[in-house]
Amino acid sequence: MTQFIGTGDIRALLHATGIEEFLTGLAGYIEADFRRWESFEKAARLASHSRDGVIELMPASDGDLYAMKFVNGHPKNTAAGKLTVTAFGVLADVATGYPVLVSEMTILTALRTAATSAVAARALARPDSRVMALIGAGAQSEFQALAFKALLGIEEVRVFDIDPEAVDKFCLNLAGAGLRIIRAGSAAEAVRGADIVTTCTAAKTRAHVLTPDLIAPGMHLNAIGGDCPGKTELHPDIVASAAVFTEYTPQTRIEGEIQQVPADFPVTELWQVLAGKAAGRRSANEITLFDSVGFAIEDFSTLRYVRDLSQASVRDIDLVPDLDDPKDLFGLVAQSPKWATIAASTAAGSTHQGLSPSSAAPSVGSPKT
Amino acid sequence: MTQFIGTGDIRALLHATGIEEFLTGLAGYIEADFRRWESFEKAARLASHSRDGVIELMPASDGDLYAMKFVNGHPKNTAAGKLTVTAFGVLADVATGYPVLVSEMTILTALRTAATSAVAARALARPDSRVMALIGAGAQSEFQALAFKALLGIEEVRVFDIDPEAVDKFCLNLAGAGLRIIRAGSAAEAVRGADIVTTCTAAKTRAHVLTPDLIAPGMHLNAIGGDCPGKTELHPDIVASAAVFTEYTPQTRIEGEIQQVPADFPVTELWQVLAGKAAGRRSANEITLFDSVGFAIEDFSTLRYVRDLSQASVRDIDLVPDLDDPKDLFGLVAQSPKWATIAASTAAGSTHQGLSPSSAAPSVGSPKT
Repeated sequence: MTQFIGTGDIRALLHATGIEEFLTGLAGYIEADFRRWESFEKAARLASHSRDGVIELMPASDGDLYAMKFVNGHPKNTAAGKLTVTAFGVLADVATGYPVLVSEMTILTALRTAATSAVAARALARPDSRVMALIGAGAQSEFQALAFKALLGIEEVRVFDIDPEAVDKFCLNLAGAGLRIIRAGSAAEAVRGADIVTTCTAAKTRAHVLTPDLIAPGMHLNAIGGDCPGKTELHPDIVASAAVFTEYTPQTRIEGEIQQVPADFPVTELWQVLAGKAAGRRSANEITLFDSVGFAIEDFSTLRYVRDLSQASVRDIDLVPDLDDPKDLFGLVAQSPKWATIAASTAAGSTHQGLSPSSAAPSVGSPKT
Repeated sequence: MTQFIGTGDIRALLHATGIEEFLTGLAGYIEADFRRWESFEKAARLASHSRDGVIELMPASDGDLYAMKFVNGHPKNTAAGKLTVTAFGVLADVATGYPVLVSEMTILTALRTAATSAVAARALARPDSRVMALIGAGAQSEFQALAFKALLGIEEVRVFDIDPEAVDKFCLNLAGAGLRIIRAGSAAEAVRGADIVTTCTAAKTRAHVLTPDLIAPGMHLNAIGGDCPGKTELHPDIVASAAVFTEYTPQTRIEGEIQQVPADFPVTELWQVLAGKAAGRRSANEITLFDSVGFAIEDFSTLRYVRDLSQASVRDIDLVPDLDDPKDLFGLVAQSPKWATIAASTAAGSTHQGLSPSSAAPSVGSPKT
């Protein structure tokens, strides 16, 4: 049987584990997999674009496990009461090709994006960072705030969104979470004095959520919202002046903030920093930028994590047949009452041994049961 | 909610519908989709190869529905009591990107392969064909026999396999199915006098299941087993002498029998024949060859068919969250008892309206429920 983890299971798991503890554990899996980055089979996502959105398949494999995420992006969905992004994932055993787990990943994608941001910031931000500015209070915002609290010790979040109701939602959701939350009147007010700046807006074009005048020496920038061609959040001069870190560079060149700079603009892949193969932040005054677009290995780590976490509590689904004789697939479906009747009425007079090349009579015998 | 169709559901559906009736209905869906071939977004499958097998993703979309099949091929699996090929599929709504159906496709792939073969033969074989030779009595064999009976009126099947136990299984499974089944002592004996020859062997190399001396004028050849690079069933001279019909030629050039002939060898795509854009069989003496490797549109048709067939009986799974406010994903997971307690103890003194940019105190309020 294949394991199934639905949205209800993930909610229950988060309540049992605690969201910050879940994020911390997930970050450990992501960091471990980034450190062995070179052992993965990687591919750019396979996208199907339509008028209102995109459906993408994101596979990754380490030779033992194969993960695949199905994810959509449909900005107009919210007007119809639906989510912009939904996702589910599959984990399969490479040795047999059998799917072992099917899981919701709408909630998990939000968690893994935040956990990856925190993994990057832990390697790139100044260690004494305590204040984060958060520009954009949409679906990703609370997850970012909690991940940075849990993994970096962020104490204060200064939040700004052009939609005050989004900020209301953010404040309500994080009331009691142990963060000092400041509603800022503008992006500039939020960013002033912050150690880390996270942008997670739904900007659909070449937006300038941050401009160069807002950026102070030593800041770490965590740019989440720019994640497809033509969609960026930062003024290009910010990108050009920062030490830029990516997930999978071929994909980031197309989808990330570095769309705005020449194709040979130097970047460092995050895994290289985590594996000790490249420098991260080189001084307290440097501006570091994590140009995040999301990558399949993060989903691989997430599916691996929830499978390990939830072993005891998951449901089974009959996604793959379990056969007595793996060479007899038809036997699985041939148990028709009609045929059973025919077979019963003829079984006395003939068996399959009675069939031969010279026989011209219709063959009869017992159906497999 | 997303619909789920497991292997048990497909078995029940087949028993309720009847396998031949199911194949006939499925063939209608496949033929209808092949006729509008040009309206589909098509892509070669995305394969992940490993030591013991391959995992493939096969997407297709017609602009309204998006289908994706996950399928593996692991020849060594049978030694461990597992299937060589398993599969499952997903149907999604292109307008919203939401997955609407997850279905087993191990059984469905066997059915759709047979239905596609019969669709091709109905367009390419001589209309008076009544006798089929079947070389290879593996997992696909019974499905082929029933599809050709149901769609072409095949009355006699002459079966040969190098493994006598596979033939035993075939005869047992099709006892009472209304076919005259002849056990042949060799491929040559099976083929002699047949109108249609189906090869569905598990040949792993450049096999010559059929040689030119066996082929008589007017035969239709249905080559199923050669379906990946380096795996073919027919002597190249047979391919060179036949009118060859393919599914999606870029894929067949790599995976089909036409690997063995030059890359500019002329072929006709089956959809062109079905849509009236190209000739099928041009004379009673011509040798026609359907060089089948399987294509994503067949899986698309199959998922569309089972969704329509099974509307009333399927189960729902919580693969995608259903939110009151689609902009508040975090609200779905924030219903922690701990937070509810904190909120209850502070709700009297503060609401979210009390939060402001100038407030330095931790924000409090009721969590969303």
